[in-house]
Amino acid sequence: MREDQDSIDPRAEDTLTVREEDGAISDAFRGAVQAAIEARDVDRLKALTIPLHEADMGDLLEALDADERRRLIELLGPDFDFTALTELDETVRVQILHAISPRIAARGISALDSDDAVYILEDLDEDHKAAILEHLPAPERVALLRSLDYPEESAGRRMQTEFIAVPPFWTVGRTIDYLRETADLPDTFYEVFVVDPGYRLIGAVALDRLLRAKRPVLMTAVKKDQLHVVKASEDQEEVARMFEHYNLVSAPVVDDAGRLVGVVTIDDVVDVIQEEADEDLRALAGVGSDEELSDTVGYISRSRLPWLVVNLGTAFISASIIALFENTIEKMVALAVLMPIVASMGGNAGNQTMTVAVRALATKDLGSHNARRVVSREVLVGLINGLVLATALGAIAAFWFSSAQLGAVISSALVLNMLAAGLFGILIPLAISRLKLDPAVASGVFVTMVTDAVGFFAFLGLATWWFSLT
Amino acid sequence: MREDQDSIDPRAEDTLTVREEDGAISDAFRGAVQAAIEARDVDRLKALTIPLHEADMGDLLEALDADERRRLIELLGPDFDFTALTELDETVRVQILHAISPRIAARGISALDSDDAVYILEDLDEDHKAAILEHLPAPERVALLRSLDYPEESAGRRMQTEFIAVPPFWTVGRTIDYLRETADLPDTFYEVFVVDPGYRLIGAVALDRLLRAKRPVLMTAVKKDQLHVVKASEDQEEVARMFEHYNLVSAPVVDDAGRLVGVVTIDDVVDVIQEEADEDLRALAGVGSDEELSDTVGYISRSRLPWLVVNLGTAFISASIIALFENTIEKMVALAVLMPIVASMGGNAGNQTMTVAVRALATKDLGSHNARRVVSREVLVGLINGLVLATALGAIAAFWFSSAQLGAVISSALVLNMLAAGLFGILIPLAISRLKLDPAVASGVFVTMVTDAVGFFAFLGLATWWFSLT
Repeated sequence: MREDQDSIDPRAEDTLTVREEDGAISDAFRGAVQAAIEARDVDRLKALTIPLHEADMGDLLEALDADERRRLIELLGPDFDFTALTELDETVRVQILHAISPRIAARGISALDSDDAVYILEDLDEDHKAAILEHLPAPERVALLRSLDYPEESAGRRMQTEFIAVPPFWTVGRTIDYLRETADLPDTFYEVFVVDPGYRLIGAVALDRLLRAKRPVLMTAVKKDQLHVVKASEDQEEVARMFEHYNLVSAPVVDDAGRLVGVVTIDDVVDVIQEEADEDLRALAGVGSDEELSDTVGYISRSRLPWLVVNLGTAFISASIIALFENTIEKMVALAVLMPIVASMGGNAGNQTMTVAVRALATKDLGSHNARRVVSREVLVGLINGLVLATALGAIAAFWFSSAQLGAVISSALVLNMLAAGLFGILIPLAISRLKLDPAVASGVFVTMVTDAVGFFAFLGLATWWFSLT
Repeated sequence: MREDQDSIDPRAEDTLTVREEDGAISDAFRGAVQAAIEARDVDRLKALTIPLHEADMGDLLEALDADERRRLIELLGPDFDFTALTELDETVRVQILHAISPRIAARGISALDSDDAVYILEDLDEDHKAAILEHLPAPERVALLRSLDYPEESAGRRMQTEFIAVPPFWTVGRTIDYLRETADLPDTFYEVFVVDPGYRLIGAVALDRLLRAKRPVLMTAVKKDQLHVVKASEDQEEVARMFEHYNLVSAPVVDDAGRLVGVVTIDDVVDVIQEEADEDLRALAGVGSDEELSDTVGYISRSRLPWLVVNLGTAFISASIIALFENTIEKMVALAVLMPIVASMGGNAGNQTMTVAVRALATKDLGSHNARRVVSREVLVGLINGLVLATALGAIAAFWFSSAQLGAVISSALVLNMLAAGLFGILIPLAISRLKLDPAVASGVFVTMVTDAVGFFAFLGLATWWFSLT
């Protein structure tokens, strides 16, 4: 019977694939979940969703509509793992937390590691946050409030306050026994910390070292040679850089008094690295760093508009430079045809240099120690590529408008603009970073402004001078 | 005596800081190392460099000149840890390996974990690689050749072939005893694998689970519920995505027959994530993904030229569109002054949309399941921002050239171009990714081509039509 049913119903569990080829949640699976929500079939829902990894559950939630999300969470009750919420776009997460009652939210959040709980709470407005925290047991509430007290994007926000710390006189054997006998250990951990009675950090022991050591050995004898410690107030990007640099998997977090208050783990750091690279990329294109695929049209329009307005301003600067040469253009329309080429080639070359500079500054590969060398390199690259491209551009322009002189003028203008592109493509990000601002955000406008201005001015100016002479 | 000397010589060890504020190797430290190399003072060199982390040693090597690098490595002899070479730019690494003898290189490489050894060897040309491999003991040579046989950027290249695997009938206690008694374990490990007699993977046990379990428990009873396995031939980006998605720290690698052949760890994956984001960023700016700060001017010029040549081609397309309207421009030079504004605004808006699309495609947030929704969203955003900016631009242009009609023409052209920017800014990357090509590499050219063409054509075409009517 059961077998027959299976082969008839294509939605039976055993034939359902959760994901399509391209990684999206499959229509069949989403359909099965929606049907179960509709039918309020809790057993079926549990069978479908409990085996899911939190990341898959997150994708499923994103594939459902707002009302289905709420009903799914309410139907699953305590079987819904709130960790899935950390996998969602902020917009969707906030929407869900608004849809469910603060009591249900508090119950779910209290089952999480503190870093996940903070991650979920930090985007909410103050009232909503307070309403949820109110339903948490006092010790948990206090711990979360303490984490939330650290500045945004600091290690204190990203750390997990659950960790394992033992006194320095403990042996490996005693530590292992303690781990075996203690029930409420953190979900995952990669090192055991050694602390003094004041909870000041003495050292850290990696689990593989712990497992390799004999039982009577003291914990202090197997601790790491080099201890990489994070301050709770430290910026998360600094923490990420340290993890990358020293290939860390977890690192202890201490407060200003040097007391161990938490641990940052690599999974959170990976998110930071990803976010940071994304921010640079978006900033270079003038897109807000918090824009998400699930944002509304209105939000996105507003967030992209400022950059376009700034560009409108710089475009007018270029236009006024062109306006200086109206008489020349009137006499020789070919100039209007060719002038965007000089500006656009300079813009592209400037953008290449600037992108390399912005990333090198972000990864600290570029600094005062090598700035001079990199600047002269970029200028030379601009000169060489300028000469190569000017030859081609000059020849084509001369041929097109049957004027060797026009070819000579546009070639010279291009070389000048490529030099400017190399020089300002690196100097502008360097200057912005010296001012302690983010070069990714503002460099683009200035570099384009320079290459447009130099491009139009050099070409039209040279043409005016040359053709009034001959 | 010693104390006096210390207080007189500011370069004495205890006062030397390795790094400046900005993270670069300090001049004082580099100077001390250079002096010790010059004086062939091996003891001093060891005292200075052996306490360094491999990442710091890498930065020190980059701060020295080519000859000093070779002499430092030769003077340190077996005390030089070749892991530092994995922290270098490719150019510097290859230069060092060419400078030292293949025998010294082989001795250094043989002390490394296999993933680091492969990482160092893979960039060398075949002859040089063979010369080094020749000096390695046969078993190591065979293992490295096997890893090098996997395609570039595959999991097989990134995996470490040292791992710990135990049979399924072993208990937790027996496994821990084995770890305590075996001398040549991998340097670091995060899980122990369970395999059948044919080395086929049965499960993985995280070290924290191992430590929490009682000694008599079977290894198969504490293995992870969900096993995330990597195929050796899999692309490293796929592996990175899996690590991010499931918050992994290490994952087993199997060959086509399902046999365990290695393990990929998070430190290698972090490098891949970083590289991948960097590649997208550079590709969008038309910079080669392998360009490094230490490359020569000639190399960089050559690598950036192709993109500039392509842009020269598209710039000529725009120029020929402008050439269609030479007569109109001759009659009304204001058009030449204003036309770059329409093109450049469209280019910026197109770039915003395209950047968001390229990243969303890379992270698989954008796919066939939501393409339609995102396309209509981008078109709407283009329309809304187009209307807002067109009002401003139209008013300024009308005022500048005292012509309400010119204002109306430029406004309409801008709205059209912003719509085109939204539409093609998303459709072009989607189409390129559907063709299984990298949208980051080619989207930029096409999007700029469209926004330039539409910008010039719409503005000059509308003007021709409008002003010939009135």
